[in-house]
Amino acid sequence: MASNMFLYWGSGSMPCWKPMLVLEEKGFSGYPNKMISFSDKGHKSEEVLKLNPRGQMPTFKDDDVVVNESNAICFYLENKFPDKGTKLLPDDKAEFGRIVQRCAETANVYDNFIVNIARYRFSTPKEKLDEELLKTKYEAARKELKLWEGYLAASGGYVVGSNFTMADVFFFPYVAFGVRLGLDVSKYPAISAYYDKVKDRPSVKASWPPHWAEKPADTSMFRPI
Amino acid sequence: MASNMFLYWGSGSMPCWKPMLVLEEKGFSGYPNKMISFSDKGHKSEEVLKLNPRGQMPTFKDDDVVVNESNAICFYLENKFPDKGTKLLPDDKAEFGRIVQRCAETANVYDNFIVNIARYRFSTPKEKLDEELLKTKYEAARKELKLWEGYLAASGGYVVGSNFTMADVFFFPYVAFGVRLGLDVSKYPAISAYYDKVKDRPSVKASWPPHWAEKPADTSMFRPI
Repeated sequence: MASNMFLYWGSGSMPCWKPMLVLEEKGFSGYPNKMISFSDKGHKSEEVLKLNPRGQMPTFKDDDVVVNESNAICFYLENKFPDKGTKLLPDDKAEFGRIVQRCAETANVYDNFIVNIARYRFSTPKEKLDEELLKTKYEAARKELKLWEGYLAASGGYVVGSNFTMADVFFFPYVAFGVRLGLDVSKYPAISAYYDKVKDRPSVKASWPPHWAEKPADTSMFRPI
Repeated sequence: MASNMFLYWGSGSMPCWKPMLVLEEKGFSGYPNKMISFSDKGHKSEEVLKLNPRGQMPTFKDDDVVVNESNAICFYLENKFPDKGTKLLPDDKAEFGRIVQRCAETANVYDNFIVNIARYRFSTPKEKLDEELLKTKYEAARKELKLWEGYLAASGGYVVGSNFTMADVFFFPYVAFGVRLGLDVSKYPAISAYYDKVKDRPSVKASWPPHWAEKPADTSMFRPI
């Protein structure tokens, strides 16, 4: 079944990790794929641009259906294979609503972690960092994480309820990204317990960004959160 | 059915317009709702914060299910009422994939239109506008619209295929927003024909931002696109 699929992806990209988690959870381990190098501009190569005029990762096709946007790939796969592997969106309508709500809310984690802090710190020379501005960014990230701490503390061990769902596919990669950059999850007990549990999940191990094992990151970046 | 629903919304908010379109398309006209005033900080009122700690519009509940994120409300409603009113996500798996792909891509229109241009222009005094920066923003918006012009020219009259779908729910409000702010759609013939057709749809008329009829907008803002 997976032989008609093809995924282009980049190591450490959060938008790539989400569909990779879904592919593993759905039992498509070993699906045809190609890891591109962002520094070599692999995402702007001709073979990618042919499928994805935006030149972004991930880029995905399944037979003649091209689905490139990270969230869209996840929902596409679940819709096509609802009963294969892990059921990531339940039949129950209320539960479905709670899950898609949390999925959409992870856009706020993306904004706080990736756009506001990581990109700013990666793109600004250390001596030019605006410390006051950074303080407001860290404060906003803490406020965001406290919301998720509350969600997890009130749920049954996963983002929504007591099963791994699409909400975890959307949320977990950001926690792992944070931990890699120095986030001290012990300040957030429910998130910490969640991280310890989910990081050992086979789908997570199989899709863990390969370069994370090789290259350490600057752990001062997320320590203040 | 709709009597257990309640929507808080603000006039002219694109994230509000999308679920309002879905509610109309699904046949829930007259659903219980409350228009809040952004200038009076209605989105930060206690009754809203109780349901939506982020204090954002829209805020929506259906019985005891709270779904506040715009995209999540749309998918929740379609999932709960797939056969009521307009079918916005088809059973066909490939078509579903193409539609969710376009839905997700509208985030780029949001970034180009709302974040990069409208917010910048609304928040910057005219004499402080960086004309060079504005040029790059307009160029990026034109590039984005050309992609959608291509999608529409190659499809059967709607964003995906020949029926009004969730992809139109996600895309149309931005076209209307652009036109209100001076976008000359005649430069984009397929988008222009699309706009003329969809603007007269009953769901669109019923959910048209009420203050748009009363207050004209600064049409210089999107004219260069």
